[in-house]
Amino acid sequence: MARETAKHTQKVEGWAAHDETGRISPFTFKRRENGEDDVTIRIHYCGMCHTDLHHARNDWGITMYPVVPGHEITGLITKIGKNVSGFKIGDRVGVGCLAATCLECEFCKNSEENYCDKVQFTYNGIFWDGSITYGGYSSFLVADKRYVVHIPDTLPMDAAAPLLCAGITVYSPMKRHNMLQPGKKLGVVGLGGLGHVAVKFGKAFGLEVTVISTSPEKREESICRLGADQFLLSSDAEQMRASARTLDFVLDTVSAKHSLGPVLDLLKVNGTLVFVGAPDAPVELPSFPLIFGKRIVAGSLIGGIEETQEMLNVCGERNIVCDIERVGTSQINEAMNRLARNDVRYRFVIDITGESNL
Amino acid sequence: MARETAKHTQKVEGWAAHDETGRISPFTFKRRENGEDDVTIRIHYCGMCHTDLHHARNDWGITMYPVVPGHEITGLITKIGKNVSGFKIGDRVGVGCLAATCLECEFCKNSEENYCDKVQFTYNGIFWDGSITYGGYSSFLVADKRYVVHIPDTLPMDAAAPLLCAGITVYSPMKRHNMLQPGKKLGVVGLGGLGHVAVKFGKAFGLEVTVISTSPEKREESICRLGADQFLLSSDAEQMRASARTLDFVLDTVSAKHSLGPVLDLLKVNGTLVFVGAPDAPVELPSFPLIFGKRIVAGSLIGGIEETQEMLNVCGERNIVCDIERVGTSQINEAMNRLARNDVRYRFVIDITGESNL
Repeated sequence: MARETAKHTQKVEGWAAHDETGRISPFTFKRRENGEDDVTIRIHYCGMCHTDLHHARNDWGITMYPVVPGHEITGLITKIGKNVSGFKIGDRVGVGCLAATCLECEFCKNSEENYCDKVQFTYNGIFWDGSITYGGYSSFLVADKRYVVHIPDTLPMDAAAPLLCAGITVYSPMKRHNMLQPGKKLGVVGLGGLGHVAVKFGKAFGLEVTVISTSPEKREESICRLGADQFLLSSDAEQMRASARTLDFVLDTVSAKHSLGPVLDLLKVNGTLVFVGAPDAPVELPSFPLIFGKRIVAGSLIGGIEETQEMLNVCGERNIVCDIERVGTSQINEAMNRLARNDVRYRFVIDITGESNL
Repeated sequence: MARETAKHTQKVEGWAAHDETGRISPFTFKRRENGEDDVTIRIHYCGMCHTDLHHARNDWGITMYPVVPGHEITGLITKIGKNVSGFKIGDRVGVGCLAATCLECEFCKNSEENYCDKVQFTYNGIFWDGSITYGGYSSFLVADKRYVVHIPDTLPMDAAAPLLCAGITVYSPMKRHNMLQPGKKLGVVGLGGLGHVAVKFGKAFGLEVTVISTSPEKREESICRLGADQFLLSSDAEQMRASARTLDFVLDTVSAKHSLGPVLDLLKVNGTLVFVGAPDAPVELPSFPLIFGKRIVAGSLIGGIEETQEMLNVCGERNIVCDIERVGTSQINEAMNRLARNDVRYRFVIDITGESNL
């Protein structure tokens, strides 16, 4: 059971999974009072990330039930602690994956809080006060100011919500590995919540984007709907071979077990594949495509808070949002099941209040 | 059968594997005449690389029998083509893995011939004239000048031979990934032909070196014989956990199937693991140790010719040679079998002439 403290006095309506069936049902719990460094956010929208599904079903064996998923949260500030500056009541804000970090390590000091080894997440984490964190499938959130970002006015709050996880997860490594250069050739493996945003970033920055997928039906949507330049069917060995050594970068967003070999072969010598998926089972890394071509496989995990704000600003300036399907709170289980089948273009976003059109 | 040309007029005594048993037996074949751009080298020593074993046994399914292995070759020049400068008869020289490349691509022009996509190797390759290449398990070699390097006078020819493959294979990525900085912490996974040279480079450049191995008996030899600073038994989960996030770099030299996960966890955030092994089966790459820590797995394949010469010069200046066990040509099969069991400290070198002490 969740540990609460004496300061957990605020009753919240939420939606939780209670066991490994992953079935979500209404769940009332308590949040801490708004502290001196906190803001309270009335949640309007919460994106449904694959990680939510993994936690609901305990795929990684780390779930503390009941779990209230959700780390793609947008809403309006309703309370402000006395030490909080830079935010005011009514501000359009977002909260992503981070709930608490050590604040003292080199990563916290450098706003790479996501790599702090004491990192605690927005749900299924342990907050500084010892309580278990509950996520955005709920009516409001109390968040430390440090982990809150502004949503630019030009972005709709619903389609912006998935940027807090899916968006920053692809933007951070694209920036770090110098992918955002016009004319460079980018491959995006998997066209889901992460992949479709990667295509959008790629096109917004003038790259030539190739979508690589196991699903032939994604060809048309890649090119016609998302504006990708090319499509490669990864099961077509000849097509893949013909594109060997053509790409500068690959972003692999696939969360199913697979081999990196065929995709590595698409990279030029010195090319970089960034892996951002989190499959339950290890992926296969064959030696030859890695060593012939001194290629690089790099991992990346969401991003820091400053970089998340930067990414949102970039999205605001360049009009990048996620393609979403909005669902009501009564449809969460149905949406979860469809998410498990990848039957969504490309992110479900829960309309928490059922009344908002921000 | 090997294709020869009309210019293949020189009879050579060699040692070849003829089928998948990998058994080596004496084999007489022909080499091309010494052309205008060629040097002929009387082979004194040839190192026995794991790749030789893989080819002899057709582990990778690419062997063209009969195969004369050997790409860690040292000897003396006996003939010089008229277009050859920089070499003279009697010079102490070496030949590594490369026999022919396109000469025109960006990699050839930049002396990264090893990444030319037309690269042909010293054995089991197809030379420009269409003939199959035969390696250093033989009495002499005809090599294009472009792929020949000088052996510094301070290096013994037998212990220098494995530098032509094992040495450059670890030196090239160590240099590229800026590992050769005093005080940095390097992990070396696997203490064989490659690993022991990596330890020597690490110590020669002032790094703190940790050997990571599945074999407890390697602790003493790592520290006492090779001067490593620490030893980690990779099967001891607690020991491994206690060293999490401590290393700047890892060189993984293991050619057996394994998981990169436990070793990745040893790296600091942003740390780099260079993988230089060539297992038959893919290694396992679990997502979490890669993404939590935005770590990098980089491949690397031998090195270019200029860099090989640079590496040999560095070895000459810093007195770095391989630890070898010299064997006669009648002992090749016995040595192959011991190599298959990793029963060698750390490289067999065949004394081809049986008379030399260069």
